[in-house]
Amino acid sequence: MSLPAAFHDIAKRVNNWGRWGEDDEIGTLNLIDDEVVTGAVATVRSGLRVPLALPLRQGGVQTGVIPGRIDPLHTMVQINQELFGPGTVATSDDTVTMGLQAATHWDALTHASHSGRLYNGRPANTVTPHEGARFSGIEKAPPVVSRGVLLDVAGAKGLDRLPGDHAVTPEDLDEAAEYGGVTVRGGDIVLVRTGQIRLLLGGDRHGYGYPSPGLSVRTPEWFHARDVAAVANDTLTFEIFPPEIEDLWLPVHALHLVEMGMPQGQNWNLEKLSTACAQARRYAFLLSAMPEPFVGATGTPVAPVAVL
Amino acid sequence: MSLPAAFHDIAKRVNNWGRWGEDDEIGTLNLIDDEVVTGAVATVRSGLRVPLALPLRQGGVQTGVIPGRIDPLHTMVQINQELFGPGTVATSDDTVTMGLQAATHWDALTHASHSGRLYNGRPANTVTPHEGARFSGIEKAPPVVSRGVLLDVAGAKGLDRLPGDHAVTPEDLDEAAEYGGVTVRGGDIVLVRTGQIRLLLGGDRHGYGYPSPGLSVRTPEWFHARDVAAVANDTLTFEIFPPEIEDLWLPVHALHLVEMGMPQGQNWNLEKLSTACAQARRYAFLLSAMPEPFVGATGTPVAPVAVL
Amino acid sequence: MSLPAAFHDIAKRVNNWGRWGEDDEIGTLNLIDDEVVTGAVATVRSGLRVPLALPLRQGGVQTGVIPGRIDPLHTMVQINQELFGPGTVATSDDTVTMGLQAATHWDALTHASHSGRLYNGRPANTVTPHEGARFSGIEKAPPVVSRGVLLDVAGAKGLDRLPGDHAVTPEDLDEAAEYGGVTVRGGDIVLVRTGQIRLLLGGDRHGYGYPSPGLSVRTPEWFHARDVAAVANDTLTFEIFPPEIEDLWLPVHALHLVEMGMPQGQNWNLEKLSTACAQARRYAFLLSAMPEPFVGATGTPVAPVAVL
Amino acid sequence: MSLPAAFHDIAKRVNNWGRWGEDDEIGTLNLIDDEVVTGAVATVRSGLRVPLALPLRQGGVQTGVIPGRIDPLHTMVQINQELFGPGTVATSDDTVTMGLQAATHWDALTHASHSGRLYNGRPANTVTPHEGARFSGIEKAPPVVSRGVLLDVAGAKGLDRLPGDHAVTPEDLDEAAEYGGVTVRGGDIVLVRTGQIRLLLGGDRHGYGYPSPGLSVRTPEWFHARDVAAVANDTLTFEIFPPEIEDLWLPVHALHLVEMGMPQGQNWNLEKLSTACAQARRYAFLLSAMPEPFVGATGTPVAPVAVL
Repeated sequence: MSLPAAFHDIAKRVNNWGRWGEDDEIGTLNLIDDEVVTGAVATVRSGLRVPLALPLRQGGVQTGVIPGRIDPLHTMVQINQELFGPGTVATSDDTVTMGLQAATHWDALTHASHSGRLYNGRPANTVTPHEGARFSGIEKAPPVVSRGVLLDVAGAKGLDRLPGDHAVTPEDLDEAAEYGGVTVRGGDIVLVRTGQIRLLLGGDRHGYGYPSPGLSVRTPEWFHARDVAAVANDTLTFEIFPPEIEDLWLPVHALHLVEMGMPQGQNWNLEKLSTACAQARRYAFLLSAMPEPFVGATGTPVAPVAVL
Repeated sequence: MSLPAAFHDIAKRVNNWGRWGEDDEIGTLNLIDDEVVTGAVATVRSGLRVPLALPLRQGGVQTGVIPGRIDPLHTMVQINQELFGPGTVATSDDTVTMGLQAATHWDALTHASHSGRLYNGRPANTVTPHEGARFSGIEKAPPVVSRGVLLDVAGAKGLDRLPGDHAVTPEDLDEAAEYGGVTVRGGDIVLVRTGQIRLLLGGDRHGYGYPSPGLSVRTPEWFHARDVAAVANDTLTFEIFPPEIEDLWLPVHALHLVEMGMPQGQNWNLEKLSTACAQARRYAFLLSAMPEPFVGATGTPVAPVAVL
Repeated sequence: MSLPAAFHDIAKRVNNWGRWGEDDEIGTLNLIDDEVVTGAVATVRSGLRVPLALPLRQGGVQTGVIPGRIDPLHTMVQINQELFGPGTVATSDDTVTMGLQAATHWDALTHASHSGRLYNGRPANTVTPHEGARFSGIEKAPPVVSRGVLLDVAGAKGLDRLPGDHAVTPEDLDEAAEYGGVTVRGGDIVLVRTGQIRLLLGGDRHGYGYPSPGLSVRTPEWFHARDVAAVANDTLTFEIFPPEIEDLWLPVHALHLVEMGMPQGQNWNLEKLSTACAQARRYAFLLSAMPEPFVGATGTPVAPVAVL
Repeated sequence: MSLPAAFHDIAKRVNNWGRWGEDDEIGTLNLIDDEVVTGAVATVRSGLRVPLALPLRQGGVQTGVIPGRIDPLHTMVQINQELFGPGTVATSDDTVTMGLQAATHWDALTHASHSGRLYNGRPANTVTPHEGARFSGIEKAPPVVSRGVLLDVAGAKGLDRLPGDHAVTPEDLDEAAEYGGVTVRGGDIVLVRTGQIRLLLGGDRHGYGYPSPGLSVRTPEWFHARDVAAVANDTLTFEIFPPEIEDLWLPVHALHLVEMGMPQGQNWNLEKLSTACAQARRYAFLLSAMPEPFVGATGTPVAPVAVL
């Protein structure tokens, strides 16, 4: 079995291999330059900060369906320990074990491969248990601070959340951009709101994961045409799941991460941001969404913040 | 044994318990308001982004001296796994186990207690293995985005790094502020550079940890007088270590975290920032330093970024 | 709220505090002496070995109901890594994160406390995040090798498994001993089969955990009278759950671990042993069930083996 | 680079591929049959139990030299938690993260590969991050209970421990067998004492690891000729390290695990056993050394016990 022609056709059109040199490891994050950042800063009006991360804890997003992707297990290793003797100042320390893709996260470019290849044509087998990702590990990412744009697809349609079988199309993105009065520009980080995370916030973890609305296989071209730097949304699967084309699983992952070299974010809580943007009547803002620099990692938890 | 009168005298002068109400859990982070943030945004000129986190990996900061504070152990749970059958798009997943205070981090207010009390007078025994910190866990922190100010104490003295026995005094802070042409304001996050982390970057983990320059017990009053929101530096111990006053261990931890309710950051790499500020001749910038919202945690890794 | 008189009455009758000295940390494991072991060895006839541990993996026993008790997460850190250069002998290494009580395990004596006390009257607060259990941690246990006796309570009643609301009584134990033609002696390790684990083996994790047959609050006196060294069974909860007496939760845990100082085992797979004993017409055997010596731990995974 | 002819010559002579069928996953553990076990049981005289595992804790065997092989990190997740309300019986729970080869352990057959092959000719790439070892994972091992034989090589030479550059030869093994008055038989588990672990017990972790006495590349033929089921010793490296033949690293690992399909044990504390055997004047005993059945694992902690 191999990937269908329909996939390869799109792949050719969005491919960025070599665009930033043979040695490039960061893909579309190259598009965030100083000018983009000063433009992002210029969007700030009120100073309102809206955090977008889910709490990190057991009983979070994961249901056990994805093997090894465990919710954060937080444990205390010291509690009020008077390390220097009785009556001295005491300290508490803790540890965590977690799947790097378990909660609100960025996929590194190496999170996906197809046909034995990673972004920029590197062999998939350069991801090893020993080193993790030799190329394009998340520690290679430059600071992820840029202009953020909320495309509130659900809001534009007057819905709390999209139905589970709704593939978000380029037309939906256009509609949401118009709804928000915003034009997507090069270097932007686009946040696509489906409302699906309301299921999770309401306690339905299984319903949140499946079935799920998400990006259509047609959207990577839309992002590519606009030189978007990264895309995140409020779902577990990121793309429509189950997929639009039978037996073509995770095509958007492959197009974004492998072909375009564009990072993806999942499980971002966009509910408060949706309200804030609606109230401010502005859908562009300064976004800081810094990866934790785990060496060789194919993903990272992230605590994004929008500043309006 | 109990803490000496010298400690309690300072404690009284800097104490913030009740200042933001009996129920407050976030202390000096209350000082970051919308106006502070718009002021922070207004400092940005070039759009240059400087990341301040150390890489997260085995062989990082820890030497085993602090029990249970382990360097990040990154493992792969899937590598190029074709979850949906041969020839389909493949994915890689990973996990991490780490001490939350192991690398570049924020101390939550609950990281320290003294005399059985946490910030705002809460009993120390509200930190439990079951829940972690019931109050002032790091997940309670609001978005940490504010004006950052670099006080380059080593730079102001023309040194690469301060000697291991140098306690950074209020006078040193004044000198560094003057050197940087900057005035610390309410809501600022102050970054104090000692240069000590050059030892770590040069491969000397043990020398980095001990002996270490760091903040003098006299500095909390300086920060308190200026309504600083948070302080971070480039050392393992944060304060001068071994301490200035015999048998008075970790007094600055107790004053900042317990008395003032002010978060602290350690192991921040300020080397590139020092260079960038010197080149730009500006020592104030927009700083985003978002805690990962681990529920009940007494600390968190952080990937701070300065935007100049 | 405190524990009812009914509990305290039994507690007095089975209490072993001081029986092996004020400093004792191992309780009824003192009852396994050389003579008991040679007697255990003498039971072996065929040399047949029957393992009693469940496989250790994600998707094992735990459902997330007990906070922090996570199924083993196994990850590879090296796969066929040629550490000494290309073409050399390669090695693979792995790590695990798991709850020590997650699968087939022993409860250490410190797994339970009541009224602020642990076994032998020690304060409950000697279990700390820093050290774990200062007294009676599982690493203190001597080798657990003794005569094992299977009391096949379900088998004696001609049932595959006991109903979920069946409290195993002293009369049930007598019946099973008679069924097996065996007399329980001092130093024996008694394995009580309910058949409940058939639910787990059949894929019903939730049904396995709740409701569950298990030991009645009346059985500790039966074990005490016979100087049993340890007891294990094939359930998650060990004792009847929900409990027999309203609002008296986990009384058997408290009687065994705290009052008697007798280790307990849970999630032991006794199905094959049941068949083997029936075929051999012998219900006593050599049992080796060695704790892993985790320092300060309140439990341990165990891979028990019966030799018939 | 490939393995030298000297290696391949020995490999041919000790190879067991196909000996127990094409589908075999357990190698020389096939040699432990009922008769071997009854023979093992017949060695027991006094009932004395000698445990052979090191304590499991931070600050154990590992120094950080072997990437990812971390000492056990034990953390409490609940301490005296009254899960069912105030005044009820309280419980404590804990977790651990550890390298499976970090302390006293068995190497599974899949711990080593060479020339792309595992035991019984299976491709090395059947060890994956997703599944771990598809074949010969440690969970496939049958119960490891057999006759143990201590070959006290150091003792036979009148030494506390062998020098760091001493390769244990077949002649040394013969000498130790004669010293112990014991003849190695089919199905035996052979414990080879070098005394090297005294360095570790004395606090010298680095000296323990390197340089280290250990098995010579000539010993696999000795074990093969006697149909030994498994071999363990009291070193980190198992074989002489650095190796006897330049650039031939880990040949004994490859011969035992890959060619013979014979499990190896490392970091076994044989000091007390040495004393006990000397006092009893018997060097054969019943040995129980049960692997923890981690699914797909290439190693496992083990808490062995000798019964004399």
